[in-house]
Amino acid sequence: MDLAEPDGPKPGEVLVRLRASSLNYHDYLIATGRVSARDRLIPMTDGAGEVLAVGEGVKEFRVGDKVMSVFFPDWIEGAPPNVPLSQAFERVPGDGVDGYARELVVGPTNAFTHAPRGFSDVESATLVCAGLTAWRALVVEGHLKAGDTVLLQGTGGVSLFALQLAKAMGATVVATSSSVEKLERLKALGADHLINYRSDPNWGAAAQALTGGRGVDHVLEIGGAATLPQSAAASRVGGHVAMIGQLSGQDGSLQTMLMMGKQLRISWMMVGSRAMQLDMVRFMEANQTRPVLDRSFALSELAWAFRYQETGAHLGKIVIDI
Amino acid sequence: MDLAEPDGPKPGEVLVRLRASSLNYHDYLIATGRVSARDRLIPMTDGAGEVLAVGEGVKEFRVGDKVMSVFFPDWIEGAPPNVPLSQAFERVPGDGVDGYARELVVGPTNAFTHAPRGFSDVESATLVCAGLTAWRALVVEGHLKAGDTVLLQGTGGVSLFALQLAKAMGATVVATSSSVEKLERLKALGADHLINYRSDPNWGAAAQALTGGRGVDHVLEIGGAATLPQSAAASRVGGHVAMIGQLSGQDGSLQTMLMMGKQLRISWMMVGSRAMQLDMVRFMEANQTRPVLDRSFALSELAWAFRYQETGAHLGKIVIDI
Amino acid sequence: MDLAEPDGPKPGEVLVRLRASSLNYHDYLIATGRVSARDRLIPMTDGAGEVLAVGEGVKEFRVGDKVMSVFFPDWIEGAPPNVPLSQAFERVPGDGVDGYARELVVGPTNAFTHAPRGFSDVESATLVCAGLTAWRALVVEGHLKAGDTVLLQGTGGVSLFALQLAKAMGATVVATSSSVEKLERLKALGADHLINYRSDPNWGAAAQALTGGRGVDHVLEIGGAATLPQSAAASRVGGHVAMIGQLSGQDGSLQTMLMMGKQLRISWMMVGSRAMQLDMVRFMEANQTRPVLDRSFALSELAWAFRYQETGAHLGKIVIDI
Amino acid sequence: MDLAEPDGPKPGEVLVRLRASSLNYHDYLIATGRVSARDRLIPMTDGAGEVLAVGEGVKEFRVGDKVMSVFFPDWIEGAPPNVPLSQAFERVPGDGVDGYARELVVGPTNAFTHAPRGFSDVESATLVCAGLTAWRALVVEGHLKAGDTVLLQGTGGVSLFALQLAKAMGATVVATSSSVEKLERLKALGADHLINYRSDPNWGAAAQALTGGRGVDHVLEIGGAATLPQSAAASRVGGHVAMIGQLSGQDGSLQTMLMMGKQLRISWMMVGSRAMQLDMVRFMEANQTRPVLDRSFALSELAWAFRYQETGAHLGKIVIDI
Repeated sequence: MDLAEPDGPKPGEVLVRLRASSLNYHDYLIATGRVSARDRLIPMTDGAGEVLAVGEGVKEFRVGDKVMSVFFPDWIEGAPPNVPLSQAFERVPGDGVDGYARELVVGPTNAFTHAPRGFSDVESATLVCAGLTAWRALVVEGHLKAGDTVLLQGTGGVSLFALQLAKAMGATVVATSSSVEKLERLKALGADHLINYRSDPNWGAAAQALTGGRGVDHVLEIGGAATLPQSAAASRVGGHVAMIGQLSGQDGSLQTMLMMGKQLRISWMMVGSRAMQLDMVRFMEANQTRPVLDRSFALSELAWAFRYQETGAHLGKIVIDI
Repeated sequence: MDLAEPDGPKPGEVLVRLRASSLNYHDYLIATGRVSARDRLIPMTDGAGEVLAVGEGVKEFRVGDKVMSVFFPDWIEGAPPNVPLSQAFERVPGDGVDGYARELVVGPTNAFTHAPRGFSDVESATLVCAGLTAWRALVVEGHLKAGDTVLLQGTGGVSLFALQLAKAMGATVVATSSSVEKLERLKALGADHLINYRSDPNWGAAAQALTGGRGVDHVLEIGGAATLPQSAAASRVGGHVAMIGQLSGQDGSLQTMLMMGKQLRISWMMVGSRAMQLDMVRFMEANQTRPVLDRSFALSELAWAFRYQETGAHLGKIVIDI
Repeated sequence: MDLAEPDGPKPGEVLVRLRASSLNYHDYLIATGRVSARDRLIPMTDGAGEVLAVGEGVKEFRVGDKVMSVFFPDWIEGAPPNVPLSQAFERVPGDGVDGYARELVVGPTNAFTHAPRGFSDVESATLVCAGLTAWRALVVEGHLKAGDTVLLQGTGGVSLFALQLAKAMGATVVATSSSVEKLERLKALGADHLINYRSDPNWGAAAQALTGGRGVDHVLEIGGAATLPQSAAASRVGGHVAMIGQLSGQDGSLQTMLMMGKQLRISWMMVGSRAMQLDMVRFMEANQTRPVLDRSFALSELAWAFRYQETGAHLGKIVIDI
Repeated sequence: MDLAEPDGPKPGEVLVRLRASSLNYHDYLIATGRVSARDRLIPMTDGAGEVLAVGEGVKEFRVGDKVMSVFFPDWIEGAPPNVPLSQAFERVPGDGVDGYARELVVGPTNAFTHAPRGFSDVESATLVCAGLTAWRALVVEGHLKAGDTVLLQGTGGVSLFALQLAKAMGATVVATSSSVEKLERLKALGADHLINYRSDPNWGAAAQALTGGRGVDHVLEIGGAATLPQSAAASRVGGHVAMIGQLSGQDGSLQTMLMMGKQLRISWMMVGSRAMQLDMVRFMEANQTRPVLDRSFALSELAWAFRYQETGAHLGKIVIDI
């Protein structure tokens, strides 16, 4: 999957030596053909590395700067571009255009931001998709404040980032998993309350009880349609649910009385803007909050990395060393 | 249903001579036993009239003031009280406690606000439930601004108020109905674009097309579960849907890919706070926006009024002259 | 000041035939040398006209489109660029770079937006600076809602736009002037309450009294340092003051007890972003709110136009027909 | 100053055994007659203790509950009451009505909230005025998020709470003092950057330089009129300044060009609402963030406590053990 060195950067472009990537569920869907993508597409949306050369007029970056890629290079700031879903992904690396499973890439400056100072390349690479999604859900859409309670589902990348972020902002975390071992890991990472959703299928009511009957202020909904009713049950009146994943499928029952009684605020979202990423990087730098890494593979082992992802045995990001 | 005159108002209370009420779907559900209520409950949530006497320490009202009732007397301002749905309605007049189908009532000051100056009692009565719901949906949760586009469903009380409010704030309105005659009335009331959802079942796409492909900024969802997918189709990316009604039933299909692609923001809501009502009254006074009235009944004809409501022939509020 | 036709537009650029400009106080300061500018600068920040040609890759505009210029071409959306004041104006047409007192210009697409459909070129030209400032002050920073009360000072361009905008959004307007004739004009334009600040130097208290003692929700502060104490006196507790002008000079007394007692929210602002302009254009189109024009001059009469502006006799925008 | 035990609590009231108070600058101004107060007023606004008895209908508190007092008992939630400054303080304990320099008090439930679980009485007492002011400035008005930079002035109670709160929410703190020793203490408490404003009178520029030229996102302005220009210089474009104190006097120079260039957002504020206090208590419980205490006095030593406060030697709250 390696390419010959591209031509030098044109005005407004940078040449980047990629050093790391990381696996997201979105990459898995593309790699396994469950989401159709361009033929012979270079996969991987997350990318991090070092600037080798800058084109004319580039002021934001210098040679030697550590950078990370941007999920939606055309969404600079403000509201999301008002385009159909298919068009939104046309310029997403590893989806509509070639991604970062390679050594060298030339792109416009808006396809990158500075990486957090002090982070390794593999650490920075994990932030592009999972980190930014957690940041947008809690900070941008959720307006998280210290003392709020956050419900997190499972041990995927977004939930782990959200756990670290919530704790760094003084929130209380209720974490769920079906694995006793993973619950222990969540506790070690700072989770205040634990629920095993296998042994307690009414985990929504359990979460509400754990908050003294108050209900949680924020839910990061990873399961999607099938778990939303439990998330609603867990919430306080006027709580916020960030709709991020749809692991349980793309359809389910809309229980309107439950939602109405809770006067829920639900935000459906996909990753975030470049400006949000700049804010997240500042947070990471200030707090030196390091992503949880599980296992590293070489670029040549990418297929093995996806098989490992498939097992679900990991807790933390699976990363690629390029 | 008439009562003997209550004792004079105690400290912090007012004695009100009710002069008008109006019918909402909520009253209909209670009157027809579809929602259980206390036995021998005095019905009607909307009430308006005149202050006959004030108790010790009352500063907000004077004898002779025109007043209107408050849906949630205990929700003064700020976020909605964090209580279960059943408890939220325990103090709602015409639901958990006696309502306003009577001539005299004594209650605490927070059960009333001033009515808009210059409004008749029947006009003021119509604002309590339907007016405030429209206000909260567009102004409080929707942050409506001039130039935004609003999609309204049908010709119920909330939709008509929302139409008047949206036009008073410089918005563009897309209105739907299944009746050619009612669409004409909506046009006369200021609707900019009309859709007959019977002849055009894909009215979501039609609404988007009417906005030049941009999509609407706000939807007031009256149908509920069954119409939400069309509302999502009508919306721009990042649009706001205020979930108000559930005429189509309490469950439906949650089409997560559609919602995700539109990055929708959905707010489930029930009426609003007393502080929101004070803001709405100021709006009504400043603009002298008069509610659309359909037909008036005497208090003794209340049962007939509900039968008339049942026919669905009305456009505008059905009011009770007490 | 006329130029030979520039070369055709490069990729991402448009060639515009300018048809109109309008005068702002900012242009006056530059034209009279009170603010230093580049030597032999082509003046005028406001510009409107028609697209003659589009460069490669331009999708937002087509030949024949009516367009208007953008005050800060580099401020696309989101928060204002975090740069020193001098740098912020380096790219402002008619200030740091050549402006629109000419017939033809080639520029990047972000230097223009579509003009409101149905507007003449002179009408569109007036929106660039004064219109957008009023829009940002009331809608973006002020979150204006129907029923709010707005205090406006004098009859400059920003105040007149704000008057029209406030009325289009259902607000109540208190307007001030030192001229009886101008007050009559303000009344005809929709102002609800009038104050002659010459005959009533305590116009802050007068404004509060006109609102029944409640105080105004919003002030557009044009006078600056010397009038701010009156604006504070006019405000309700928690009111918003948009700091826009400094006609009374660049320094004054900071009366902290007055500000503290009112718990004022003060926003200092300079015009707005391109995204805000797009929203304003949608508002103008939806409401066909036409700017108030005073008098038109030919491009060759520009010096006379500034002398006329100097007299202060105008009410409404002074425009240039190119 | 001790009183005989009051009568038992009436409906809606609680009887509280006060155990602690703490000193604020506001108390000092009253105690020393610099702010006029009612004759023979019982001083002290901060109070904390234990519920001895509850009146009929009281549900929020039980006998034995640890409670703390509320600064504005009539400001339950939402926007601040729209009343003149003098009237706002009519019901403030230790200012318009008797305060908490006593053993027993009976008051309405809204005059108290639960104290944070696990806090001692003296710790809880310090939150009423200084803690809530810091909370409102950063969280409510400032919308602080992780990674933001906060500038704090000096070592007063509000600044110390703000330091702890900012760090608990993942922010970066720039702290100022004129004392080398106090700067060391601020560092030990978590301050990231230190400025000695005596040796560096242009501390605004110094603060901006410490943030890599970016400027700070938030300032808690304690000095008031005389320090505001430095605070503006320290800020990024679009930054937020919370106006809290006026130690440098009640008037100063309003440098409009500086404010305009920074497009500053300034919020003048006085403490906060009871609802904000409930949120702050949740934060304190979740994080067990303990106030910094300096020295404790017995109630009988209150005069000595004020003299000690006068010296300015303290760092942390001076508390009264009742």
